[in-house]
Amino acid sequence: MVEVRKELRDLEVYVPGKPIEELQREMNLKHVVKLASNENAFGPSPKALDALKSAIYNVNRYPDSGCYYLRRRLAGILGVDEGNLIFGNGSDELIVLAVRAFLEAGDEVIVADPTFLIYRIASKAAGVNTVSVPLRNMRYDLEAMASRISARTRMIFVANPDNPTGTYVTKGEVEAFIEKVPEDILLFFDEAYYEYAQGRDYPDTMRYMGRGNIVTTRTFSKIYGLAGLRLGYGVADKRIIDGMNKVREPFNVNLLAQEAALAALDDEEYVRFVRAETDKGKKFLYSEFERLGLEYVPSATNFVLVKLGSNSEEIYQRLLRSGVIVRHMKAWGLGEYVRVTIGKDDENRFFIKTLETILQDKSKNLT
Amino acid sequence: MVEVRKELRDLEVYVPGKPIEELQREMNLKHVVKLASNENAFGPSPKALDALKSAIYNVNRYPDSGCYYLRRRLAGILGVDEGNLIFGNGSDELIVLAVRAFLEAGDEVIVADPTFLIYRIASKAAGVNTVSVPLRNMRYDLEAMASRISARTRMIFVANPDNPTGTYVTKGEVEAFIEKVPEDILLFFDEAYYEYAQGRDYPDTMRYMGRGNIVTTRTFSKIYGLAGLRLGYGVADKRIIDGMNKVREPFNVNLLAQEAALAALDDEEYVRFVRAETDKGKKFLYSEFERLGLEYVPSATNFVLVKLGSNSEEIYQRLLRSGVIVRHMKAWGLGEYVRVTIGKDDENRFFIKTLETILQDKSKNLT
Repeated sequence: MVEVRKELRDLEVYVPGKPIEELQREMNLKHVVKLASNENAFGPSPKALDALKSAIYNVNRYPDSGCYYLRRRLAGILGVDEGNLIFGNGSDELIVLAVRAFLEAGDEVIVADPTFLIYRIASKAAGVNTVSVPLRNMRYDLEAMASRISARTRMIFVANPDNPTGTYVTKGEVEAFIEKVPEDILLFFDEAYYEYAQGRDYPDTMRYMGRGNIVTTRTFSKIYGLAGLRLGYGVADKRIIDGMNKVREPFNVNLLAQEAALAALDDEEYVRFVRAETDKGKKFLYSEFERLGLEYVPSATNFVLVKLGSNSEEIYQRLLRSGVIVRHMKAWGLGEYVRVTIGKDDENRFFIKTLETILQDKSKNLT
Repeated sequence: MVEVRKELRDLEVYVPGKPIEELQREMNLKHVVKLASNENAFGPSPKALDALKSAIYNVNRYPDSGCYYLRRRLAGILGVDEGNLIFGNGSDELIVLAVRAFLEAGDEVIVADPTFLIYRIASKAAGVNTVSVPLRNMRYDLEAMASRISARTRMIFVANPDNPTGTYVTKGEVEAFIEKVPEDILLFFDEAYYEYAQGRDYPDTMRYMGRGNIVTTRTFSKIYGLAGLRLGYGVADKRIIDGMNKVREPFNVNLLAQEAALAALDDEEYVRFVRAETDKGKKFLYSEFERLGLEYVPSATNFVLVKLGSNSEEIYQRLLRSGVIVRHMKAWGLGEYVRVTIGKDDENRFFIKTLETILQDKSKNLT
């Protein structure tokens, strides 16, 4: 029998759940609201859709390996050289490429706990050890992370804003942190929710690219509404980009993703619309959570972490059976919380109404 | 400075060329015929196009991580369990996943020389050494490959039919070979051109899956005309599939690829049409090559390797300037050859006409 690499032996195989459509059919649900995956509820940008309508006739051709037109356009928008950019099959892939390019089995990476799960999984798959640093008040504790740097540390992941908390580290915190990170350690800023983050003290990490050990990644999966197409990009010193390109497959970014992203970049009106609607939805959820007496974590993203207490799992299941899909946070070590993506106004209202009914039922049963 | 892994230091970064559209604009070419990448010249299947037309509105949602509907349908068609299948971002990705799951730095893989280049690149990126076994009369020499198996051998790649030669190894040869390969060595059959191969003695390698060390991969990039969407699949013993899944990113296959492939699988009429047109084009090219006194390699695929001799590079450049893009074979060590994808009838005729003019010019210059 062929044996998997020893580092992989205790790595569990991810078993995907059934698609929503299947659950809906099996549970005989008429109306389903999906607020589980931090997707853009408002759909893809209309300009992206127009681009897709004509591009589908060309899918018999291989995609452009260098993302030529998208690269040129994005470099112009960001004010960087084309050689400072790399594109991935989602920004997930860029995480894996960075680990594969720069880390060896036995190296150490520093990650927050909890945070986006892929950092740990990608590291484990490469035989790399992860040093976990707890959040502090639901925020990355960069000082504590810096204090854990050792001779074996080769990489540090910072999700900013973070998922699943929705919080961010500030410009001041990031600048102090960067000073403490030796130049031979790769500092990976994952900014999947960048376009939602509007705080004045939110840092512009691309500015520190010149240090030569910093990668900033962003995605078309969130505010641009193209999660299904898989496209993320990384910005870094050319030597970092060249290293990652060594382990990139030549046709990793599909043709339709390139066309849709190019069009979506020019749809600034749509980005503004999604941001404004998301803010409105967020304020609605905050005020409803307060009315219901529920603690939540103020968020710089399109999702909110809300505390449902020790009955959270039962509430989560009842939401599901009522057609509201949110994400339970047990796997992140936050067993009393669920994460709710901000949806369209009617979706947010349906979620709150359903949640309120469940909470009222529960309090009745208790009295 | 952050340093790439030592195994990657001498790996060259692939520098992609400009897209065809750019070349066309720069060279001021009115008519361009692209016969370079073994794409399906007849376009995507009409059923796939219909599926895409409605699926584009859902690209704000993440793809299904398990390719649920596609998996169920394909398992039914192939007569295998759903757990025997894995889907990749093109079958290229499956090559990389297999190497990453089962091989360690310092291991050895056996590859033919020349053959599809990704086997060598994926191995090198993992620090794995490649043992090259020359082709014999433009065919894989499985006996010689078996004789090179050593204690360090962990994997063997067999492209069948092969790219760039278009030849295949027979059922008899494969069965004899399998007997010589120890069960702890992964045997990887890359059948990207499977649907074009019609010889009676062409093997059905999926049948040997029960041995537990055999993967067969196929793709939607060729006869199904979906290269731009990136979708390949692998069939193997569940333990092999589980190993590969450990290094797979959860959303590696985009949503539109899944929808288009599901529809394309049901478009048998289109597959028959493409196969028949390709055969017609192949016969035309064979007879024209014979008329022009050019040697070629009879092919079981949608491309033909043709010998242009010591002036091949100049002829290749002149074809390019006339708007005919073929693939020069220098990088494969076949400096006197070009590889021509079989196109539509008018494309094949334009290629032959252009080639004939160039050859006549050249013979005039010599006399």
